Amino acid sequence: MILSLCGVRAPLDPSNADVDVVGIGNALVDVLSHESEEFIDSLGVSKGAMTLIDEERAGEIYDLTGPAVEISGGSAANTMVGVAAMGGRAEYLGKVRDDQLGHVFAHDIRATGVTYEVPLAAAGPATGCCLILVTPDAQRTMNTYLGASVHLGPDDVDEHRIARASVLYLEGYLFDPPEAQEAFRVAARYAHEAGRVVSATLSDGFCVERHHDAFLDLVENHVDLLFANEAEILALYGTDDFDVALSRVREHVEVAALTRSAKGSVVATADRVIEIPAEPIDELVDTTGAGDLYASGFLHGFSRGADLQDCGRLGSLAASEVISHLGARPEGDLAAQSAAVLGG
Amino acid sequence: MILSLCGVRAPLDPSNADVDVVGIGNALVDVLSHESEEFIDSLGVSKGAMTLIDEERAGEIYDLTGPAVEISGGSAANTMVGVAAMGGRAEYLGKVRDDQLGHVFAHDIRATGVTYEVPLAAAGPATGCCLILVTPDAQRTMNTYLGASVHLGPDDVDEHRIARASVLYLEGYLFDPPEAQEAFRVAARYAHEAGRVVSATLSDGFCVERHHDAFLDLVENHVDLLFANEAEILALYGTDDFDVALSRVREHVEVAALTRSAKGSVVATADRVIEIPAEPIDELVDTTGAGDLYASGFLHGFSRGADLQDCGRLGSLAASEVISHLGARPEGDLAAQSAAVLGG
Repeated sequence: MILSLCGVRAPLDPSNADVDVVGIGNALVDVLSHESEEFIDSLGVSKGAMTLIDEERAGEIYDLTGPAVEISGGSAANTMVGVAAMGGRAEYLGKVRDDQLGHVFAHDIRATGVTYEVPLAAAGPATGCCLILVTPDAQRTMNTYLGASVHLGPDDVDEHRIARASVLYLEGYLFDPPEAQEAFRVAARYAHEAGRVVSATLSDGFCVERHHDAFLDLVENHVDLLFANEAEILALYGTDDFDVALSRVREHVEVAALTRSAKGSVVATADRVIEIPAEPIDELVDTTGAGDLYASGFLHGFSRGADLQDCGRLGSLAASEVISHLGARPEGDLAAQSAAVLGG
Repeated sequence: MILSLCGVRAPLDPSNADVDVVGIGNALVDVLSHESEEFIDSLGVSKGAMTLIDEERAGEIYDLTGPAVEISGGSAANTMVGVAAMGGRAEYLGKVRDDQLGHVFAHDIRATGVTYEVPLAAAGPATGCCLILVTPDAQRTMNTYLGASVHLGPDDVDEHRIARASVLYLEGYLFDPPEAQEAFRVAARYAHEAGRVVSATLSDGFCVERHHDAFLDLVENHVDLLFANEAEILALYGTDDFDVALSRVREHVEVAALTRSAKGSVVATADRVIEIPAEPIDELVDTTGAGDLYASGFLHGFSRGADLQDCGRLGSLAASEVISHLGARPEGDLAAQSAAVLGG
C-alpha cells in the first residue's frame, strides 16, 4: 500500500516498516528549576532560547539555581516518547555516557516503549544535561551542556534502523555537535534510499543562525517534512514577514508544519495552507516540550496515513498536554485522545 | 531567655543557638514513577510501607518501573528543607557518594537554604536511592537502597553542629544502617549535654518492628519530642488500640505529635491532649513527604517557641502543601503561611 500524502516527494509506505518513526538527537537529562526573571537577566542569556554551555559554565549556573528536578529530555527523544505515548512504534538514536544520568536516560526512554539500543559510551564526557530555568510566566530558558551527546557520529547511525522506519525525524540541535551534522546527512541518505520520508525540526532560532547555510541546504535538498516555529522559519529565510517565509518554505519542502504558540499552527504544502487552532488548556505551567510534542502528534498521525488536518490536530493535542505540567514528556493518556482523532 | 514549653524535659533555649533544627537521616535521591496496584502486588511488597532492598534488587525493580522523575529525598532531609522553606535555620547530616546523584542531593538541599557540609564519600557504594511507586490513589510505596547513606557513623556527627541547634531531629530509618544507630545515640547525648531538645520520628511501622527494643529504649530514655503516625505508635507499644498507645507515649516523652492522615494529628503531653484537624486540600496527588513535612511545620513552630496548638497547625499546613503535588519537598510559599500563623 502506498499512501500518497498530498504528493510528498517520498511517498509514505508503511507496508514494510517495522517502526513508525525513528528520531535522532542530542540525548540529554533535563534539570528543571523555577527561577526569577532577574536571575535569567543576571546570567546574560536570551530568555526562551537555548544557549550552549561548556562543563565549567554548567557547574557555575547549576550552583546558582534553586532546587531542581531531573527528568530525561532531549528534543527528538521527547518527540519519540510522545509518539510511543500515542500508540506509535518509535525508535531513538542518541548518545549518553555509562554513568548514573546515562542510565536514567536509557531507563526512562525504554520505559515509555521507545526502542533505544545505542551503546552507552564507556569513556569521554559525562551524559549531557540541559539546565532548564522556568520563569513564573511558564517560559523556559535552556542552557545545554552537550556532554556525551557530541559523540553521536555517522557510525552510530545504523542503516537498517533508519530503513525500517516509515519516517526519519532529525532535530536541528544536532547541527551543534560537529560529528552529528554528518550523521544527519548519512541518516537522510539511508532513509531516502529506502524510500522513507525525511522530517526535521529547526529546533531554535539561534541554532538556525549559527548554522544558517547548512540548514538551508538541508531544507532545500534533504527534508520532505519540516517542523519550525515562527522565530525559526523567519531566521531560516532572513525575513521578519511570516508570509514571505511561508511562501519560501512551500517551495522547498513537501509539507511544512509551522507552530505559532497560542495562535496554533499552519500546515502548508505546495497547493494548500491549513490553519490549525491551538487546543485550549486550563493552566499554562511550563512550555518546555511544546514543540517536541507537537511533532509527536503530527508524526504519529502522519506515519499512520492521517490527513494533514488531523496530523496538525494531533500535534496541538499533544502540545497542550505537555505544557499543562512541569517537564517535557507527556503524563496524560495521549493514546486514548489520539485514537479518538484517528478513529481507531 | 528560657522558653518553658509545657514542661519539656530539656527546656528550649534558643538564645545561644545558631541553628533552629539539625536533622540526621539517610540521604537519598527519590526516583518517582506512577505505577498500578497490580504492579505493587507483583513485587510482593507492602503497599504504603518502606522496604529495604539491595543494589541488585534495586536494579531489578528499576528495570520494571515506568518513566521516572529524580528528586532529592530522604525523610529528615525533606523535613529540614521544609523548616528552611518556612523561614527556619536548618542543618542536615547525611551521607552521599561523590557521584552524579550525590551532587544532585548536595545541590538541592543547599539550594533550599539548608546548611549541608558533610563530605561526599570518595569510595564505597553509590548514593542511595528510594524507588517510590505512586499508585492512582496517591499512596506511595517505597523501596530503599541505602547505598552510601549506611556510612554515616558517629564520626560524622560533629558535637559542635549538634550543640549549636535548638532542636535535634533524628529519623527512625537511621536504625536500619548498623553504624547509624550509634550515631543516633551519640547525637542525642551531645544535644542533651548542650541543653538542647531531642526529637525523633519513628518513620515506619515495619522499621519499628525490625528494631523494636532499640526504639523503645530510645523513646523511653533519649527523646523529648516524638513524631509518629498511627501504625508506628501502635507497633511501638504492640497494641491495636490508639488510646492505649497514646497513654503509654505520654509517660515516656514530654511531647508526642501523632499524625492520623486525613483525621489530622494529636499532640499530647503529660497533662494535655490537643486534637489538630488536617488542612483541607484541593486535590490529593502524592502522599510522599506528608509525615516529613508535618514534622517541618511542627519543628519550625516549636523552635520558635510557638504553643503546641500552633506547632500542630503549622505541621498540618506544611503537610497539606506537599501532598498536593508530586514529590516530597515543598513547592509553595510556606514562609508566608508560616509567618501568618506565627504572627511574625
